[in-house]
Amino acid sequence: MRIGICGAGTVASGVVSILQDSKGLEARLGSSAIQIAAMASRRASDNPVFAGIPFELDVFAMPSRADIDVIVELIGGIDDALRLVKAALSEGKSVVTANKALLAHHGAELMALAQSQGVSLLFEAAVCGGIPIIKALNESFVGNNVRGIAGIINGTTNFILTKMAEPGANASFETVLSEAQRLGYAEADPTFDIGGMDAAHKLAIMAALAFDEPLQIDQVFTEGIQEIDGEDLKWAERLGYRVKHLGIALADDTSLEMRVHPALVPDQSQLASIQGVTNAVNVLARPVGETLFTGPGAGAGPTGSSVVSDLFDLARGAPTRPPQSLSEDRGSRKAKSMLETKSGWMVRLSVRDRPGMMSQVGSILADHGLSIDQIQQRDAPDGTTTVVMILDSAVERDFQASLTALKSHPDVMPGARAIRVFDPESIG
Amino acid sequence: MRIGICGAGTVASGVVSILQDSKGLEARLGSSAIQIAAMASRRASDNPVFAGIPFELDVFAMPSRADIDVIVELIGGIDDALRLVKAALSEGKSVVTANKALLAHHGAELMALAQSQGVSLLFEAAVCGGIPIIKALNESFVGNNVRGIAGIINGTTNFILTKMAEPGANASFETVLSEAQRLGYAEADPTFDIGGMDAAHKLAIMAALAFDEPLQIDQVFTEGIQEIDGEDLKWAERLGYRVKHLGIALADDTSLEMRVHPALVPDQSQLASIQGVTNAVNVLARPVGETLFTGPGAGAGPTGSSVVSDLFDLARGAPTRPPQSLSEDRGSRKAKSMLETKSGWMVRLSVRDRPGMMSQVGSILADHGLSIDQIQQRDAPDGTTTVVMILDSAVERDFQASLTALKSHPDVMPGARAIRVFDPESIG
Repeated sequence: MRIGICGAGTVASGVVSILQDSKGLEARLGSSAIQIAAMASRRASDNPVFAGIPFELDVFAMPSRADIDVIVELIGGIDDALRLVKAALSEGKSVVTANKALLAHHGAELMALAQSQGVSLLFEAAVCGGIPIIKALNESFVGNNVRGIAGIINGTTNFILTKMAEPGANASFETVLSEAQRLGYAEADPTFDIGGMDAAHKLAIMAALAFDEPLQIDQVFTEGIQEIDGEDLKWAERLGYRVKHLGIALADDTSLEMRVHPALVPDQSQLASIQGVTNAVNVLARPVGETLFTGPGAGAGPTGSSVVSDLFDLARGAPTRPPQSLSEDRGSRKAKSMLETKSGWMVRLSVRDRPGMMSQVGSILADHGLSIDQIQQRDAPDGTTTVVMILDSAVERDFQASLTALKSHPDVMPGARAIRVFDPESIG
Repeated sequence: MRIGICGAGTVASGVVSILQDSKGLEARLGSSAIQIAAMASRRASDNPVFAGIPFELDVFAMPSRADIDVIVELIGGIDDALRLVKAALSEGKSVVTANKALLAHHGAELMALAQSQGVSLLFEAAVCGGIPIIKALNESFVGNNVRGIAGIINGTTNFILTKMAEPGANASFETVLSEAQRLGYAEADPTFDIGGMDAAHKLAIMAALAFDEPLQIDQVFTEGIQEIDGEDLKWAERLGYRVKHLGIALADDTSLEMRVHPALVPDQSQLASIQGVTNAVNVLARPVGETLFTGPGAGAGPTGSSVVSDLFDLARGAPTRPPQSLSEDRGSRKAKSMLETKSGWMVRLSVRDRPGMMSQVGSILADHGLSIDQIQQRDAPDGTTTVVMILDSAVERDFQASLTALKSHPDVMPGARAIRVFDPESIG
């Protein structure tokens, strides 16, 4: 099988290194089963890993080459990648891609094209780097009814939250973000990661596969970690939780919810223990039960490993699952509005220290059907009291109404904050 | 694809339930892609799940039936299962099995037979129930060089150790074992689980696949949890560890070690947080890095899910990895003797409380090249002192020699104990 690699960045170097070094592949497929026919990138590369490989500067010339059977799309971005992948599929060539943004926005169209051409579009590398979650959802859990996925699926945000939560850190979001950028764990423009869009792409892809529903990136509620401060993390810890940035997709027989947001998770849960740039995906399915996949979510080695796993499947002639799972003509569940979803909450208020104040807070919550699971308070020298509560799970609409009511109370100071609580045990 | 299910126990009921209920399989394969042609078991079953399925009492009549394409071996045990699987493969029929003992002892022979017949022998369900670790090792990490596997791969022992370690438990091994038996987490004859043989079977199978070495069950050093007492667990916790029963397989370019034994793991490690009957497998590989797979290790649903995953691969015509990976003509690494392996140790001694005693202990250890990482001591009313030490990683031969020397010291009381320490971070 002769492949053409488009892109010459980090992941491409990982793929080339593996293909040149791996004894395992040789043993299983024969020594020349996967040959790199050519690489292409808009910019020349002086990466010594690529030495000896024919290198072109026009990626769009690759799909039509007769000496290439499979295109590996690693150029990133959306527009050019879309053009490239469409061209390759139209030429009857299978494509392996690590491009989650492309799939999240054009997966249905590309899958339909692949299917009509009788070729494969594989993308293990697009979701959570080295964790084989796509294969698990597509193949291992094929006899299951998946009810939920919940995971830490963006390494940048988890690195930042881990650093901010370190004992004695007292580091602001901005300070830690700068450190992440210096270490290469965050992009120069980090919006995509810290704003949650990257996680939303991954979640939409996993949810489509897990639930056999169309891919619906526009239905993913997306909130980033920009608003989290060090006090949030400290209070969460005192109350028995850690703050993580989660992707959550839940389905019942008729509805589907997909959301990406920061959340408190119980500190005894496995997700709470996931540190730094590591990713973790919890899958709740019947009858298999609860499984958790943990591993490196990005980088040349992990992502390259997943690209090569897809290439191996193509080289050994493994028929892939019928690709309709990302297409638009499947599924029957209705997407839930975020206002209809349920979460617990951590609420932090600063209130004027007056008699009966706590009872007023309690009755505002009760009026909206909310109940308090834990409460702590701390007097400030300025005559106010900080009140931090964990609320039991409630419908978002009711909670938001109660928060508005609390904020409008004359003795509640400006700046009331709320972060959702998610217990992985609550699904399954 | 028409299948014949041999065996009518827990796993068989899980498989039948999934095949009858799963919408996912229908959507992906067509509604009748996997048909149950017949079941067979030496004893009739009145399980209502099996109602309507033709039921035979002679499992050995199944392989030659013209209306069966694939045999699902769920009868367990070794001798009859071997006869059955050989007959099926000889008839040119693929086999799916959940039988780890059969594979551990006869995997090489059966794989060679499957290969010569051009059929498949699949066994995702044989290792760690619902965790798709076989597919991960065989397919996802195919481009990697696996250096180590370390896991909690027996649910019974982990349940017992978890219960014994619960705060205020003070429960003896025997008490907790009885509870496990009552809950169905331990067999009436629990020797196989608590003695480590079950874990050794799984480890041997995983190691053969991970390292592309022949399956060598007789090279697995195997120690159970029978000797662990509540004091061991308490001391481990004081020193920052948990005691787990681990399967560990490590390889470098020339040697291979496989061992199953109780070990202290750092309480911050992910393995330390695995509770109850849950299984977890840590895979260290280059270039993917460290991944961890966690999930239910046994039961109708999880194990049935894995059997169905294998059936799905057969039904969609997925060529399986060339099966020589369990056969005897591969691999070049030499199995290490346990005496050559390295571990840290927790040592617990009761010594006569005499001046200079600790310095004598220290110098015995130093004479054997051992160094102390942590030490705690506690005086007993009878004039003895309990000394508990964590020793840095050392070669087993040297450690055993030092332990013998310590035990033979006139002021060391009988009953000195030692448990290995394993840090998952130490490999990779």
